[in-house]
Amino acid sequence: MFDPIVVQSQSGPYSVEFDDDAFGHLTEDKRQKLFIVDANVARIYSQELATIRASSPFLTIEASEANKSLERLPQYITQLLQCGIRRDYVLLAIGGGIIQDITCFIAAVLLRGIEWHFYPTTLLAQADSCIGSKSSINVGVFKNIVGTYTPPKRIVISTSVLKSLQGVDIRSGIGEMLKVHVIAGPTAFDSIAADCSKIGHDSAITRHYIRRSLNLKKSIIEQDEFDRGIRNKMNLGHSFGHAIESATGFTVPHGIAVTIGIDMANFLSVRLGRMNRNHFDRMHPTLRRNYQGFERTDIPKNLFFEAILRDKKNSETKLGLILPDANAIPQRVECANDDVFQSCCSEYFERERIT
Amino acid sequence: MFDPIVVQSQSGPYSVEFDDDAFGHLTEDKRQKLFIVDANVARIYSQELATIRASSPFLTIEASEANKSLERLPQYITQLLQCGIRRDYVLLAIGGGIIQDITCFIAAVLLRGIEWHFYPTTLLAQADSCIGSKSSINVGVFKNIVGTYTPPKRIVISTSVLKSLQGVDIRSGIGEMLKVHVIAGPTAFDSIAADCSKIGHDSAITRHYIRRSLNLKKSIIEQDEFDRGIRNKMNLGHSFGHAIESATGFTVPHGIAVTIGIDMANFLSVRLGRMNRNHFDRMHPTLRRNYQGFERTDIPKNLFFEAILRDKKNSETKLGLILPDANAIPQRVECANDDVFQSCCSEYFERERIT
Repeated sequence: MFDPIVVQSQSGPYSVEFDDDAFGHLTEDKRQKLFIVDANVARIYSQELATIRASSPFLTIEASEANKSLERLPQYITQLLQCGIRRDYVLLAIGGGIIQDITCFIAAVLLRGIEWHFYPTTLLAQADSCIGSKSSINVGVFKNIVGTYTPPKRIVISTSVLKSLQGVDIRSGIGEMLKVHVIAGPTAFDSIAADCSKIGHDSAITRHYIRRSLNLKKSIIEQDEFDRGIRNKMNLGHSFGHAIESATGFTVPHGIAVTIGIDMANFLSVRLGRMNRNHFDRMHPTLRRNYQGFERTDIPKNLFFEAILRDKKNSETKLGLILPDANAIPQRVECANDDVFQSCCSEYFERERIT
Repeated sequence: MFDPIVVQSQSGPYSVEFDDDAFGHLTEDKRQKLFIVDANVARIYSQELATIRASSPFLTIEASEANKSLERLPQYITQLLQCGIRRDYVLLAIGGGIIQDITCFIAAVLLRGIEWHFYPTTLLAQADSCIGSKSSINVGVFKNIVGTYTPPKRIVISTSVLKSLQGVDIRSGIGEMLKVHVIAGPTAFDSIAADCSKIGHDSAITRHYIRRSLNLKKSIIEQDEFDRGIRNKMNLGHSFGHAIESATGFTVPHGIAVTIGIDMANFLSVRLGRMNRNHFDRMHPTLRRNYQGFERTDIPKNLFFEAILRDKKNSETKLGLILPDANAIPQRVECANDDVFQSCCSEYFERERIT
């Protein structure tokens, strides 16, 4: 129906296919299969999934940060082994980013590697996380601290499953879509900004911007799969975003926190004299609409600053941030965690975020 | 002093260096380092390691099967993070196969990949496991069920550390050395067989056969790093060996169990009409001397047959064994787990092993 997007990786090429029949492909592969499914998706689509559930082992997991931890993995792996999994099985993940992270990590290490496929059911997973190879697993208090680069062999996207999502989950996905359009430059950002309200409602427009977001990301990750250089830019909004998530006990959805994070990065860039305020003003209304409902969410500052110090991109003495330059194009910058930085963050939280 | 051996892998080339100054290289690398050290080695070489212990974080781990488990990893990873580990650190492992497995797995997944170096302190690790990229981690009752292919960037071998090993540990290393010489053919086996008693005692001969074993292994793993074809042969003696280890609660050292496993594979091949008995008779005295002290170790048969059914190389209905062919060269064979197989194993344990 639509051309697949093929992504090149060190593990070989993999494809993103688009099909409006959400679960129609699940039985195509005749190899022995094993499903790892978001428990909520399994409840919503119990009828559609009944056939495969009867024919293949089917592990359901509640999508929570606690379940995406190294501490829980022995339990999942034991269950898969008890189901008889072998190297020639295919693991199929159905769900959002958390189910993706868990399945990707298991596929990377169980029996030293099993083929896996992914059926993303959130906009965030469809438009962003499904490509790029990364898995991220929590260890104790450390979030996303272990992982691998292990792409699925096949991704199938159906926008029809998005209709079961709540508005805030759609906006969480839009947050990551906005991010990659900021990276692509003002023209790209302004085009998606104009259509933002239709994403998640109009399926043709939704699919158009999913494909565009994936193609923009593809052009970056194919140059730098292992995040040693240009791919760093994809962390725009993420140092701030992760710290917001952490400081609020993960009550702010990831893509919403990233949206606030992009706005903060823009604001900091203006304050540091890197970027003219008109770029902040150009993007702010779109970003603000996308984090609507979180303008006044309490973000305890001590927890926020503690969390940002733990970021993987930091050097020993500096924060590793992604901040827009004079042309509003994000670049990696080393930034001191000093009074200027901290007062700028406070000013953003207390005034700019709300305005 | 000796030419390094350079091994090609998908992650790039890595080198095995030989130096009689066991721990002299440890401070050469000026990057920030973090040590993972076998607790026993740390005790024996406390003086030699005092300087590095004072200057770098130093995690000691008792080399046990329980400690080589996915369940224990969150604890190690938390300790490393509390020591301030970042992506630009180098992890240095000092110890045998268990310390290698733990460090290799951590280096593969922590922060999605950290460079690691290895100073093997057992003959088995020096002559066999240090190259080949594999890590193997236990999950619950499942041994070596998760892992990755993540070679160290640098390996430094000093035969001087072998003098602290017990005879049975030397023979455990010799077991894997014999294995790769069986794979290389009768002439290769007969040459190491003639010098077996000097390995671990005469350092020039020890180094000669370590280098030879590594070069034989290198020629196989460079063709098939990910164990999809020819590398399977390196599992000679291992299906039986792992089952012996499991059935005896890991009281038989790995390389000793492999030595018995090679003898069993030879015997089964004779019984199945694949190989002439004179090859069994040619190798048996050398193998028997190497598993000396374990000729009468009780191997509960129910546990042995249960364990061999869990082997990763099995297909759904058959055992995947490595058995010598008419020229005594090991090949992968599918073998039914039938009465012939079981009575042949029993006959070996009760008569051939002891004779």
